[in-house]
Amino acid sequence: MPLTTRIESAIAEAIRAGQGGVAPPRLASALHYATAPGGARIRPTICMSVAMACGDDRPHLSDAAATAIELIHCASLVHDDMPCFDDADVRRGKPSVHRAYSEPLALLAGDSLIVMGFEVLARAARNDPARGIELILTLGKRTGMPFGICAGQGWESEDKVDLSAYHQAKTGALFIAATQMGAIAAGQEAEPWFELGARIGEAFQVADDLRDALYDEATLGKPAGQDDLHGRPNAVAQLGVDGAIRRLKDILGGAIASIPSCPGEAQLAQLVRAYAERLTPVAPARQSH
Amino acid sequence: MPLTTRIESAIAEAIRAGQGGVAPPRLASALHYATAPGGARIRPTICMSVAMACGDDRPHLSDAAATAIELIHCASLVHDDMPCFDDADVRRGKPSVHRAYSEPLALLAGDSLIVMGFEVLARAARNDPARGIELILTLGKRTGMPFGICAGQGWESEDKVDLSAYHQAKTGALFIAATQMGAIAAGQEAEPWFELGARIGEAFQVADDLRDALYDEATLGKPAGQDDLHGRPNAVAQLGVDGAIRRLKDILGGAIASIPSCPGEAQLAQLVRAYAERLTPVAPARQSH
Repeated sequence: MPLTTRIESAIAEAIRAGQGGVAPPRLASALHYATAPGGARIRPTICMSVAMACGDDRPHLSDAAATAIELIHCASLVHDDMPCFDDADVRRGKPSVHRAYSEPLALLAGDSLIVMGFEVLARAARNDPARGIELILTLGKRTGMPFGICAGQGWESEDKVDLSAYHQAKTGALFIAATQMGAIAAGQEAEPWFELGARIGEAFQVADDLRDALYDEATLGKPAGQDDLHGRPNAVAQLGVDGAIRRLKDILGGAIASIPSCPGEAQLAQLVRAYAERLTPVAPARQSH
Repeated sequence: MPLTTRIESAIAEAIRAGQGGVAPPRLASALHYATAPGGARIRPTICMSVAMACGDDRPHLSDAAATAIELIHCASLVHDDMPCFDDADVRRGKPSVHRAYSEPLALLAGDSLIVMGFEVLARAARNDPARGIELILTLGKRTGMPFGICAGQGWESEDKVDLSAYHQAKTGALFIAATQMGAIAAGQEAEPWFELGARIGEAFQVADDLRDALYDEATLGKPAGQDDLHGRPNAVAQLGVDGAIRRLKDILGGAIASIPSCPGEAQLAQLVRAYAERLTPVAPARQSH
């Protein structure tokens, strides 16, 4: 089964499980709306690619890991778009969840997707409880406080920001979860995979800063110029466009160099190189993430 | 250690773990604010009481189960108080989290507390991964979609409401989680403990309807008359005050009768009887829950 098919069916299966029984229909529909059609599914692709590079001896666990990360990512998009944060009307080229449904349903959809991320892992792990617990710990750490995407967003409410903690939590966290959970799902240690995730996260942060500064809303599929508008720190303001592009290339080189020795090391390096090309903004990017 | 001390230290320990490292200080503070001082800690008390009635052979697991349920409960209060839901200024006699901090921080505090609930269980379960996975599955089921408190809130966005599904998800879910997770933490089957949780949940729903109809804001520690204001279905509108009080007593009698045979059966029945007295509104209730 091609990787994208595997990812899409695992996500769809998780959403269906959340809609069974006598679920409130509009919230059930909002869960589907928030997760499909997705963006480029970059985090789950990285997660599964790492699992495959490590042998992927429990495909149902790597499916669950990839799905859980994407559900948490979708939850964060739904909550970040809400009026008290970015107040974004558009996401992935269609109305944001609170626009299409309502604020209460957007809040609940985000909450439900977070819970679903942990449920997907626990359901898949009944026969592998030890790996399951490690997957859940890693997902929790990179989602909540003090190191996860919640912490990352939390920094935006501070006057004095620890920039390195901010970036690693806000953008890096789910990439770190992706590489580490891919490894754990395949029975490997998580720690050696930290650096690859962190560097890919940094690269995406710089690429996102570049896209936010260079592209318009139609190309982005979401409002442009948000960093400037909200006075958020970003690489383009700090280094200029050319400097930011150079920095992006350096980071991705470091990412490839950091890949731990494993059977699928070469394919994994190729995947990162492909992202590097796609991320570097010479022409409008082909897909949102 | 008395039960209340055990519960409070387990909750405080979980919150401290979320504040370590370089956490954004205001969000870290909001997590503490949202969880302490608590209300009557009824759900964790029930959870631990069931665990103790079943022998409590892994106290660190029942501590974690009780804490996780209370963290989820606190998260739901924080999100439910937000402007897009109840728009409540006051909770447990002090400003609600979005009033004391901000809407973004309230949203993030709720998200972080949900994540923390799952993390607490996973951390405690490293040496008991099989029980840990069952605890996480039960917490997830009673928190998210389609059977959890998110689903319960979701019903309030529907024109046609399945009343039984609504009440069981909105109020019953975390009581079901409490009895079942207490049993799982002590190595017992969850299923026989469903009915006790569901009936206690029903009793609290009726009691809450009575309190909302009869008491003022100063007594409740939160705005009164909310059910009427939001047109929510409630037992007092349906049965009148006397009818609702009779219904409450019936439900609690059924709850006691449903307690599965276990070493601590008698103490558990006594605990439910004590709640029954406290819940029945003859004089203003002594504590919020």
